[in-house]
Amino acid sequence: MAALPVFTVVLLALGFSRGFQHHFVEEEPELVAGPSQYGSLWPLPQKVHISDVSFKLSSSNFQITDAKESSAGPSCNLLQSAYRRYYEYVFVGPKNQKRGRDQPAGPSEVTELQVWITSPDSDCDSFPTESSDESYELSVDQPVAVLKAPKVWGALHGLETFSQLVYEDEFGAKTINSTVISDFPRFAHRGVLLDSSRHFIPVKVILANLETMAMNKFNIFHWHIVDDSSFPYLSQTFPQLSEKVRNRDGYRIRYFLRYRPNSIVPTEHRFTSFETVPRFGIPDVTFPPPPPNRKSNPDIQKFMEQQGFGQDFTKLESFYIQRLLDIVTTTQKGYMIWQEVFDNGVKLKPDTVVHVWMDNGSDKEMAKVTAGGYTTILSAPWYLDYISIGQDWQKYYKVEPLNFNGTDDQKKLVIGGEACLWGEFVDATNLTPRLWPRACAVAERLWSAKEVTDTNDAFNRLAVHRCRLVERGIPAQPLYTSYCPREYKGI
Amino acid sequence: MAALPVFTVVLLALGFSRGFQHHFVEEEPELVAGPSQYGSLWPLPQKVHISDVSFKLSSSNFQITDAKESSAGPSCNLLQSAYRRYYEYVFVGPKNQKRGRDQPAGPSEVTELQVWITSPDSDCDSFPTESSDESYELSVDQPVAVLKAPKVWGALHGLETFSQLVYEDEFGAKTINSTVISDFPRFAHRGVLLDSSRHFIPVKVILANLETMAMNKFNIFHWHIVDDSSFPYLSQTFPQLSEKVRNRDGYRIRYFLRYRPNSIVPTEHRFTSFETVPRFGIPDVTFPPPPPNRKSNPDIQKFMEQQGFGQDFTKLESFYIQRLLDIVTTTQKGYMIWQEVFDNGVKLKPDTVVHVWMDNGSDKEMAKVTAGGYTTILSAPWYLDYISIGQDWQKYYKVEPLNFNGTDDQKKLVIGGEACLWGEFVDATNLTPRLWPRACAVAERLWSAKEVTDTNDAFNRLAVHRCRLVERGIPAQPLYTSYCPREYKGI
Repeated sequence: MAALPVFTVVLLALGFSRGFQHHFVEEEPELVAGPSQYGSLWPLPQKVHISDVSFKLSSSNFQITDAKESSAGPSCNLLQSAYRRYYEYVFVGPKNQKRGRDQPAGPSEVTELQVWITSPDSDCDSFPTESSDESYELSVDQPVAVLKAPKVWGALHGLETFSQLVYEDEFGAKTINSTVISDFPRFAHRGVLLDSSRHFIPVKVILANLETMAMNKFNIFHWHIVDDSSFPYLSQTFPQLSEKVRNRDGYRIRYFLRYRPNSIVPTEHRFTSFETVPRFGIPDVTFPPPPPNRKSNPDIQKFMEQQGFGQDFTKLESFYIQRLLDIVTTTQKGYMIWQEVFDNGVKLKPDTVVHVWMDNGSDKEMAKVTAGGYTTILSAPWYLDYISIGQDWQKYYKVEPLNFNGTDDQKKLVIGGEACLWGEFVDATNLTPRLWPRACAVAERLWSAKEVTDTNDAFNRLAVHRCRLVERGIPAQPLYTSYCPREYKGI
Repeated sequence: MAALPVFTVVLLALGFSRGFQHHFVEEEPELVAGPSQYGSLWPLPQKVHISDVSFKLSSSNFQITDAKESSAGPSCNLLQSAYRRYYEYVFVGPKNQKRGRDQPAGPSEVTELQVWITSPDSDCDSFPTESSDESYELSVDQPVAVLKAPKVWGALHGLETFSQLVYEDEFGAKTINSTVISDFPRFAHRGVLLDSSRHFIPVKVILANLETMAMNKFNIFHWHIVDDSSFPYLSQTFPQLSEKVRNRDGYRIRYFLRYRPNSIVPTEHRFTSFETVPRFGIPDVTFPPPPPNRKSNPDIQKFMEQQGFGQDFTKLESFYIQRLLDIVTTTQKGYMIWQEVFDNGVKLKPDTVVHVWMDNGSDKEMAKVTAGGYTTILSAPWYLDYISIGQDWQKYYKVEPLNFNGTDDQKKLVIGGEACLWGEFVDATNLTPRLWPRACAVAERLWSAKEVTDTNDAFNRLAVHRCRLVERGIPAQPLYTSYCPREYKGI
């Protein structure tokens, strides 16, 4: 080791001067931090009126109950466990001073939230579909707040909204203002894509992210279970499926999620759809092997020759997809496709949903797909695996999904979108903070009214919403220089 | 809610086609995954010879001991606790089958690592300086491995290296190859900067990152404690310091780390320097307030007028820094400055260390600073708060700190560098996975020989090293699609 200058033990790094020439310059205009008139509501409901009158809530004197007139009662576990969950969320943080149950409520205290399912069929025992009614109405008054919803789905959203209205006054007392809210989603399909093929994601992490999705009124979990990199899926109906894939070169089956449709989704959250492998046998040679081997695989080469495809792998792809879709058509299942299946001219059922994901010219693609009469969802601007320094949530927030050339009828074919976090660079170590609160921007864009575009107001609500996620144990990363009343405690 | 097409419950997202047109394309040439001849050593030692002969280690029959000739003995807590720590690291993961202590060792088993401090003064009770000897020699044979180092600092590094040589054979048995290593750092100053002014960082998180620094042979923790955003520092010697700052507009003192120099640094890791506020009083008006208020502050304006500075805030800055440095000069302390203090022509002591951080033309700055005879450290290419999709660790890895125009004498003035993770967008939720393993690239660049530049070999070692960090409880994020024998379990 070369001789080095000797320093005293304590070196002073004089850093004040760096304040003059800041090392990080935000390109966006600086946002003005301050409280929003809408508190920390996220996503912003369709109609909100919050009055200045405020009430208190006491953990020992507050309960969430079924309204007498409700079509869902104590037997509806979906709601009952939601009541317990949201009671905990409302009183998260240091508990209020204990007070005896027998003590009378104060004059301005909310002691009850009554949940009233108004439709004769509450949907409690069914699964949600794209056409499920998710609307609700919430009225906060004292001593009783009322949450009305045609179906349980709206009630779940309304419970989240109620919990978001509760804040702490300057003495730390749980407080809620007199409020009237009428709410429903702008788009029916509001999804998050996670990818368990590039990295293992523990079930615990998937579940925590499902919970966080519910806190943001997402309703679709798009689970990209398998891909070239790994095939962590074991079909109990068709065990051969996993075997065949396992034995192909280039595939590596590392772990099997002992997964059955719906079995891992907690009943409190019911998500409509999930991506899965086809459940009706596999076309043999035409099952495309992973890209690195496709060109050198002699069986594939032979097959392509026989079919007269030459070296055009697009034709092979379309042949495969066409055959697969034809099989699907014989079942009662619908299907979604990535946009290139449409682009390549594969014959599609009229009710096909086309997933627009390529960022280059996605507005033109949306116009083309909907002009063809197909329902569509948009992910192109919301690939959250692309990261950069700064507040990129604003970029996601400013997207307007209907901003393409088309008729009103075409626009109606856009049923929503998805925030996609592909898995090349994420696993349990960094997935959750990378997804939240960035995906929250997508959540509000897909839920709230088209006119909700005030980035500054969004910033102020989202900053508090993000602290709420942290309080609930979700390591959502900060938007910018900031602090939370109760910071994240893990490492 | 508009009427929506009704779907069946299970939607099939046909995603195979996406394999053909991959959504993420790496710009870098694809690396070839496979085992490195150097196993998972990180950073790569200066001289390594690993033979094919391998030995086993048993948790019940292995110990780390002081060599009889060592100048450090049982009273050296620094080493004793390191022995315990590294014993745990070696046998991390599922424990071996228990075996009685009395059972004799097999013919090819390493049962002991003897640590031999060869210098009469082990440095056990002192703090490291920039000129401390960090070298060590490690010889792994059976039944005894020997680690020789002039000082405890080299022994700590050698223990880490020993632990990195241990791997699991196909039956899960802990295994180590016959190995000879001679090692020392290329640069004396190998630092990580963390910033507790933009976000609160729990002490637990700071400590975990100090541990991880040691696992990468970093030796400098540059703690950017305070800045415009907050002043989380309470001086017990000068309580007025915090008071004055607290009372200035724009400053917000949220929390005080009850911090005293050295008191929070665990004795197992002793880092040379830390950034701190000056400890000898504060120039009054010339203490620059935070940038947003500087221009409107009438006291500052008046002062600048009196001094004839006009509106040139650079002059104010230099006046302030000059005054501060003059005070420092009256003490026995050395100082480091950010490069603009040098650029602005402030008069500096000859032993000043200049921190080159501006990425634009940093090679020219290095040439200029060293031509002026000043010692320097480099951070410009290693601002890890700048993030992007992909393997950006390769970019950090490919930096050559001496790649500027200058004489050999100038090059000798470069004593190292720092990986900087500024705090605008990080707190406890995302700091650790964002820092590791990206900072590992900087660690190897600063420790290993100049010729160690094989990115492919680095990838293969680093992938395993990263899994090792995960096994030790550090949520280091993945480099790329991959898996670890024992994945991260947290959320």
